[in-house]
Amino acid sequence: MDKQELVERITSQVLARMKSSSALSAAGGAWQQSPSPATAGAAAGAAVAEPPARRPAGTAAAAKAGGPHAELAQTPRSALAKYIDHTLLKPEGTREQIDKLCAEAVEYGFYSVCVNASWTAYCARKLRGTPVKVCTVVGFPLGAMDGRAKGFETRGAVENGADEIDMVMNVGALKSGDLKTVEEDIRWVLRACRSTTVLKVIIETALLTDEEKVLACQIAKRAGAHFVKTSTGFASGGATAADVALMRRTVGLELGVKAAGGVRSTEDALAMIQAGASRIGATASVAIVTGTKSQSKY
Amino acid sequence: MDKQELVERITSQVLARMKSSSALSAAGGAWQQSPSPATAGAAAGAAVAEPPARRPAGTAAAAKAGGPHAELAQTPRSALAKYIDHTLLKPEGTREQIDKLCAEAVEYGFYSVCVNASWTAYCARKLRGTPVKVCTVVGFPLGAMDGRAKGFETRGAVENGADEIDMVMNVGALKSGDLKTVEEDIRWVLRACRSTTVLKVIIETALLTDEEKVLACQIAKRAGAHFVKTSTGFASGGATAADVALMRRTVGLELGVKAAGGVRSTEDALAMIQAGASRIGATASVAIVTGTKSQSKY
Repeated sequence: MDKQELVERITSQVLARMKSSSALSAAGGAWQQSPSPATAGAAAGAAVAEPPARRPAGTAAAAKAGGPHAELAQTPRSALAKYIDHTLLKPEGTREQIDKLCAEAVEYGFYSVCVNASWTAYCARKLRGTPVKVCTVVGFPLGAMDGRAKGFETRGAVENGADEIDMVMNVGALKSGDLKTVEEDIRWVLRACRSTTVLKVIIETALLTDEEKVLACQIAKRAGAHFVKTSTGFASGGATAADVALMRRTVGLELGVKAAGGVRSTEDALAMIQAGASRIGATASVAIVTGTKSQSKY
Repeated sequence: MDKQELVERITSQVLARMKSSSALSAAGGAWQQSPSPATAGAAAGAAVAEPPARRPAGTAAAAKAGGPHAELAQTPRSALAKYIDHTLLKPEGTREQIDKLCAEAVEYGFYSVCVNASWTAYCARKLRGTPVKVCTVVGFPLGAMDGRAKGFETRGAVENGADEIDMVMNVGALKSGDLKTVEEDIRWVLRACRSTTVLKVIIETALLTDEEKVLACQIAKRAGAHFVKTSTGFASGGATAADVALMRRTVGLELGVKAAGGVRSTEDALAMIQAGASRIGATASVAIVTGTKSQSKY
C-alpha cells in the first residue's frame, strides 16, 4: 500500500507538472492562427432547418465556434465547404495522402482537416498561415482506452497544434451503466484541452439504442463538450438524419452536432444539415462540394 | 522558439518524472502474481511444426515466455488452451461480458484474457490468484496515435495490472517510408513496460505487402519486442497460415508469433500453430478448445 501511495503521489505530481506545462504553452503557441471566427456555424443558410449550434458567448471556444454573422453571402459551394472536416483516418494513410488532404482543404476552403494523432504536428506545420484548422481524434475509434490516457493523448495533440479534438466516448462503460466513468472520461480530455480547443464527443450511434443516444448526449453536454458527433466511420453504420435530429433535440442549440460516417454526396450533406448538423465529417468532401460521386466508405 | 524550448524542457522533465514513477512501481505491485512460468510456449506438442518462440534466457520476460519443458503431458485440450489469449475487444463489450470472459479463461485454462485498456484494472482484480494473465491493447486498433501517447497508455496499463501489451505498429509511417518513427514508436511502448512485461507488436498484415510484412517484423525485432502479431481483428482481413510462416521465418525462434483475427475453430488454431504461431488470439476460444462452431468475427 505504501508503494501504491507513492505511485499515486508521483502520478499526481506528474499530472500537476503536465498541467503547468500546458498552462505555459497555452499562453500561445506558434501553431495558433489568427483568431478568425470563420466557422461551420456561420455558414448556415436558408436551407438549414435549425440554426447552427454555438457555444455560449464569452468563452474562447465560443469565438471559435462562431456567431450567426458572416459568410451568408458566400457561394453555396464555399458555404458548404465551411461545414466540412476533411477527413483521412485510415491507418495506412501515407504522408502523400495527408499532403493531398491538406492541399484540398486549402483549395476548397474546408473548415478543417481531421487526422490521426501521429499526423497532427505535420498538418499543423503544413497549414500554418491558412484558415484551415487541424482536428485530431482521441481514443479512436473504440473509445475503450483509459480516461487518463485519453487526456494525455489530447494534451499531446493540442501541443502539436490540434485546434479541435474528436474523442470517442467509452461505449462499453455506457452500456454497463457506469455513467460516472463515461463522464469522467470526457472530463479527462476536457482538462487537457486549451480554452480555445473545441471538443467533440463521438457517441457511435450504430452501437446505441435511442435511449442510450440521448443519455450519451446528455452526459457529453453535462461534462462540458462543445459538440456531439454521430460516428467514427469504423463501426457498422454511420450518420443518419434521424440520429442527427435526435441528437440536436437532446443538446439544444448550445452544442454543435457533427454528422460523420457515410456522408458522401451533396445530398447527404444537405440532409444532415437540414436535420440539425452544424458540422460534417467526410472523406468525400471534394465530391460533396463539387457534386460528383465518391467511392469513399467514411 | 523560446516558448517551444520551454515546452520541450517541461516535457522532458515530465517524462523523466514519469520514468521514475514507473521505476518505483516496477519494484513490485500488489497485482503481480507468483512468477509461474506456465506459458503458451511451454505447450508445444508433436503436432507443432516449429518449436515455440522464447526470449533469450536471463531476462525476466524470458521466464514469462517459458522454456521448452513443462506441460507436454497435458491433455490436448488444455495444451491448446495455453496458446490462447481469450479476447474481447469490441467497444460495446459490457462488464457482464468481461466477467464471462474471465470466468471462461479460468475454467478452460486460457493463457490470458485480452481486453481494451479501460478493463485492465478490473480484469487484474478479478483474476488475482489465478494463473490467467491480463493482456491489454495499446494504440488500438489503428496504431496511428503518437508514440508518446502509446507509451503513456502502456504505463497506465502496466500499473493497472497488464502482464502483456499488444500494441499496433504505426502502419501509415511504415507505408510512408518513415521507418525511424515506426521503430521509435515501439521503443516508447517498450520503455513504459516493466522487465516482466511481454510486448507484442501487431503489424496488421491485411494492410501490408509481403515486403512490408518482413520489414515490419525486422523493425519490431530490432526495437526489442517479444512477439510479432498478425492482426487487430478490425482490418479487412485476419491471420493466414502463409503470413504466420513468413513472420516466423523473419523473426526466427527468438521472438513469439501471435496469430489473431479469424481464428475460430480447432482446425484454424492448429493450422496457425503448425505454421509457426506460438500464441493465438481469439474470441471463439471455447469453440477452439471444445471443437464446436463459433460465429465470432475476431
